[in-house]
Amino acid sequence: MHVMIIGAAGMIGRKLVEALASTQTINGTPIDRLTLADVIAPSVPADLASITTSRSLDLATSQAAASLIASRPDLIIHLAAIVSGEAEADFEKGYAVNLTGTQNLFEAIRHEGLREHYVPRVLFASSIAVFGAPFPEVIGGEFFTTPLTSYGTQKAIAELLLADYSRRGIFDGVGIRLPTICIRPGTPNKAASGFFSNILREPLSGKEAVLPVDENVRHWFASPRAAVGFFLHAAQMDTAAIGPRRNLTMPGLSALVGEEIEALRRIAGEKAVRLIRHEPDPTIAKIVAGWPTQFDASRAQSLGFSAETSFDEIIKIHIEDELGGNLQ
Amino acid sequence: MHVMIIGAAGMIGRKLVEALASTQTINGTPIDRLTLADVIAPSVPADLASITTSRSLDLATSQAAASLIASRPDLIIHLAAIVSGEAEADFEKGYAVNLTGTQNLFEAIRHEGLREHYVPRVLFASSIAVFGAPFPEVIGGEFFTTPLTSYGTQKAIAELLLADYSRRGIFDGVGIRLPTICIRPGTPNKAASGFFSNILREPLSGKEAVLPVDENVRHWFASPRAAVGFFLHAAQMDTAAIGPRRNLTMPGLSALVGEEIEALRRIAGEKAVRLIRHEPDPTIAKIVAGWPTQFDASRAQSLGFSAETSFDEIIKIHIEDELGGNLQ
Repeated sequence: MHVMIIGAAGMIGRKLVEALASTQTINGTPIDRLTLADVIAPSVPADLASITTSRSLDLATSQAAASLIASRPDLIIHLAAIVSGEAEADFEKGYAVNLTGTQNLFEAIRHEGLREHYVPRVLFASSIAVFGAPFPEVIGGEFFTTPLTSYGTQKAIAELLLADYSRRGIFDGVGIRLPTICIRPGTPNKAASGFFSNILREPLSGKEAVLPVDENVRHWFASPRAAVGFFLHAAQMDTAAIGPRRNLTMPGLSALVGEEIEALRRIAGEKAVRLIRHEPDPTIAKIVAGWPTQFDASRAQSLGFSAETSFDEIIKIHIEDELGGNLQ
Repeated sequence: MHVMIIGAAGMIGRKLVEALASTQTINGTPIDRLTLADVIAPSVPADLASITTSRSLDLATSQAAASLIASRPDLIIHLAAIVSGEAEADFEKGYAVNLTGTQNLFEAIRHEGLREHYVPRVLFASSIAVFGAPFPEVIGGEFFTTPLTSYGTQKAIAELLLADYSRRGIFDGVGIRLPTICIRPGTPNKAASGFFSNILREPLSGKEAVLPVDENVRHWFASPRAAVGFFLHAAQMDTAAIGPRRNLTMPGLSALVGEEIEALRRIAGEKAVRLIRHEPDPTIAKIVAGWPTQFDASRAQSLGFSAETSFDEIIKIHIEDELGGNLQ
């Protein structure tokens, strides 16, 4: 089994590689080859060094996609993308990477299949950014995709292509619409959504964090561990059960910022909560007000996908996976 | 006012040109230039000969799109497409014409705007093929687009691009999701949907027609005149009222085949109805069973779009527009 991860240098990519290094199998079949690709060559896991190839390339060139697919991977996990803010700031780069790059990948697979029978499984990291406000209170499984960003547009288009290429038997695709990942490891960044993670991650390490919105802001979350689990499940599931509607809103936790803080208090105490500094930022508040807050993910759940059901769980996962099981 | 129609040689294109030749204005502004483009050079209306340019080109080449847009039309009506059956039979041609062609057009507009301020209105002929079964009994305004054909996929992608380019101010786009056009003029063709028109058009001219499905089959219709009206309204409306959700399911008439036949009986008598030969075709019946039957088009209606409300009306329009007002 040859597994390829494109966009392997990102946060989810690195965690997926760790998980594969730990299991070393997909559905009981040993992984005998692993290809990791990104714009900078991804680091190679020690446990899989002998079977891993790390490649630096730009999927927005069709040659790069063809050269990747010439190795005929059985499972392709496509995570490569530039993020929402950058895709909005740089129209051409966003379309080149997020749309043309994905089209090049899908076309390379089709051309390889024309040469000799080839139908790999393809997992695509999509996003709840395919949806655009105004929303119903709970976004149902048949709600339309009217994105309000170029990033969301590019993801929604890739979803349509994934469904059509799958329907035509060119590959066996699953689109994974990720919730906002929380707690993101690392350091605070300028993403408008950063505070959802910052207000937990920083206090859990004894550092201050800024909360720019009210505690009654609601949003849709899953842990990095849950995100890795979505891809591992999609890699191993019976896709016949999905039918032609190949893009799935993943399960998540709908929670208030105040519920994040209560969970922090229960797990790390009042001293951690006191590290959250309330500094209302109307610009961020306005951006966040346009984001979805809750989904009906029963379709993905019935297909075996699962995520956390409380922020206590999300915080404990962070402590286990990022802090070696210990609080500061 | 420079008006450009791309795909002007098709049935709706020709009727739109006739309508423009009759009004010679858009919102009271005289049309002082008309460009008609298609893969074969469209014929030029006598009344507008002095201001019309007819061009033969393939939008799937980016040079063709750039050369069209260099003339900076104020209103662009993009009807060019290959039809569903052909797009399904020829994957590459379908994507080249219906997707790449549309992308080339939109990009040519963006590049022209980068050179010098330019924000034309762009009307795009989309289709109810963006929807895929299973459907609710009435497809609501927020139902998702999960097409089951490559044609529907290409139209759904073009809709997403149209919305994003409009949101970013690159052009002022409106996506027009057409119902099945009935009564299509011309001769019977092999399209699976052909019989909806054949069973009226042929008997109205004293000829036999074949009905391959039950009379209780329901579908969603508008006349060619209504379709032309959709584009003329979209050309003249205040698009600020639309907001970011730029793709509109047009109003139509949800009717049974039996209701078509009853209207034919009322207007042309029993002798016309007797020209319909019932020849059940399970293949066609199966295809048609996957098609939508009814929409909630209240959003488009509230924006001023309208269509027929009975098959009597649809038949009378055909008699007026195609038969010179006379029955055989």
